[in-house]
Amino acid sequence: MKGAAHAGGRYVALDDAVVSTFDLGLVNGDTVYDVVSVHRRYFFKLDAHLDRFERSAAAWRMTIPYRRDEIREILGELVDRAGFEDAYVKVQLTRGRARGDFWRDLRRAEQEFIAFAIPYIWLWGKAKAFEGGSLHLSRIERISAAAIDPTVKNYCRADMAQAQLDALERGCDDAVLLGPDGNVTEGIGWNVLAVRDGSVITARDNVLTGVTREAVLELCAAEGIPYQLRALSPEEMISADEVFVSSTAGGVMPVLRIDDATIGGGYAGAITKRIQELYWAKRAEGWHGTPVDELVKARGGATR
Amino acid sequence: MKGAAHAGGRYVALDDAVVSTFDLGLVNGDTVYDVVSVHRRYFFKLDAHLDRFERSAAAWRMTIPYRRDEIREILGELVDRAGFEDAYVKVQLTRGRARGDFWRDLRRAEQEFIAFAIPYIWLWGKAKAFEGGSLHLSRIERISAAAIDPTVKNYCRADMAQAQLDALERGCDDAVLLGPDGNVTEGIGWNVLAVRDGSVITARDNVLTGVTREAVLELCAAEGIPYQLRALSPEEMISADEVFVSSTAGGVMPVLRIDDATIGGGYAGAITKRIQELYWAKRAEGWHGTPVDELVKARGGATR
Repeated sequence: MKGAAHAGGRYVALDDAVVSTFDLGLVNGDTVYDVVSVHRRYFFKLDAHLDRFERSAAAWRMTIPYRRDEIREILGELVDRAGFEDAYVKVQLTRGRARGDFWRDLRRAEQEFIAFAIPYIWLWGKAKAFEGGSLHLSRIERISAAAIDPTVKNYCRADMAQAQLDALERGCDDAVLLGPDGNVTEGIGWNVLAVRDGSVITARDNVLTGVTREAVLELCAAEGIPYQLRALSPEEMISADEVFVSSTAGGVMPVLRIDDATIGGGYAGAITKRIQELYWAKRAEGWHGTPVDELVKARGGATR
Repeated sequence: MKGAAHAGGRYVALDDAVVSTFDLGLVNGDTVYDVVSVHRRYFFKLDAHLDRFERSAAAWRMTIPYRRDEIREILGELVDRAGFEDAYVKVQLTRGRARGDFWRDLRRAEQEFIAFAIPYIWLWGKAKAFEGGSLHLSRIERISAAAIDPTVKNYCRADMAQAQLDALERGCDDAVLLGPDGNVTEGIGWNVLAVRDGSVITARDNVLTGVTREAVLELCAAEGIPYQLRALSPEEMISADEVFVSSTAGGVMPVLRIDDATIGGGYAGAITKRIQELYWAKRAEGWHGTPVDELVKARGGATR
């Protein structure tokens, strides 16, 4: 795979972006991260992603070893070094290795920052991102917000991984999970939205507050499409007129089938298509964009 | 830190036991593991640990790239190379890197096996392992068994890590979590047991079935101490005559305080002490033991 990484305080090859087996970020699922996309050399909502990354780290009592401007520079440099027009760019903060005794005192761990830029990822492949994919409604329950706050973007999601394996084995592209209250939550790296009677409905609680979903709601507001942030039951989702997924890794992706239930007659619906068109058209114009070149020019040549 | 590791199919230094940032074992908390202890060059209940490791891997649809006899050889070799009398020995299986597309198809990931031997770990330090430590009863809920099966020994435990941070900040040694049903579950890497009216009580459901706990119950049976595997409420635990923790990393450890509540007058109780004495006395005699030398002699000189 092509790309560039930053780990251990310096720029490295992707294969050298590694985490120690002793890093508590691995051992306890104690890692926060964020992903920002680049389209035509524009980062999308870069500061919204970095705001969330900083909030995630603070919520878990972790210290990011770089200032915001330093991270912005690193990310610009990574995309520039890799020569990408479009990219999937991750920032990741693991708890780190406990010093002295192996894992007795988490407070003595020093957080490790890794960032990388790789080619843009389409979660279900590019064709399905536009034409639509299918979901499996998992019987595995999503980790409760009482256990782990889902607004902290983190790697503790073996529930979702098992659900995704089930989905793939059943011929679906991905899995959506229900929370302990029986309502729809999310999948690995995306929010789900349903359209009923011309109105967009998506979960208010027990989900990550997706940056792409925020962008979708902004487009809804601009287009005069009403939306509701509220509990969405699986029955409402399956009987919806349209269902779609929002993700940094694929944008606005129609859902045409949930297990054996066809959604919207098996075609992407009008509202989904309108939002998808707007999303990519505006991305091409640099909507909420930060040019890679601006970040690269800003670099001060600090020791990294 | 002193020790020896096996990663990527060969023996390596501890610092080279690393996991790719792209390994889904990190990215999704999708890693199973087990830990076995060595005391006076005897592995304790080695096959019980490897049975559980194999069950964990199978439950999560992962393939261990070595046969049982090969793993036994590797572990013996690691302890022998490190020259340890006492050791903490881990086997770990991460989901691995998805081939081709980054993370679209988990089924295409090849699992990565890492094992290492490091000096024996006393979770709360050696003195507290014998004299007793303190617990914080966390208000963070333990991940539900409906989301992730706790009998699969895994790294998805950011709930426990946050609870442990709370515990340390409050001057306690460790944290115990309650399940969604309000009953006592476990802490990071250990089971908890209460003694009431001469009887040992420990959770039947929603916990890892600890190998050290199995050994404790075996000792109870031998000593004529009754025990019950059943739901344990936090009130029953706090008002118990004795409380102790069982772990591969520390053995049988008395709990003398839970937050502000003193347990057993602040001293290790008679049953706890009896079990602790027996546990270590029998360990010294090679109880349920596999000699390191036996594993090393068995090695066939296969290419690794």
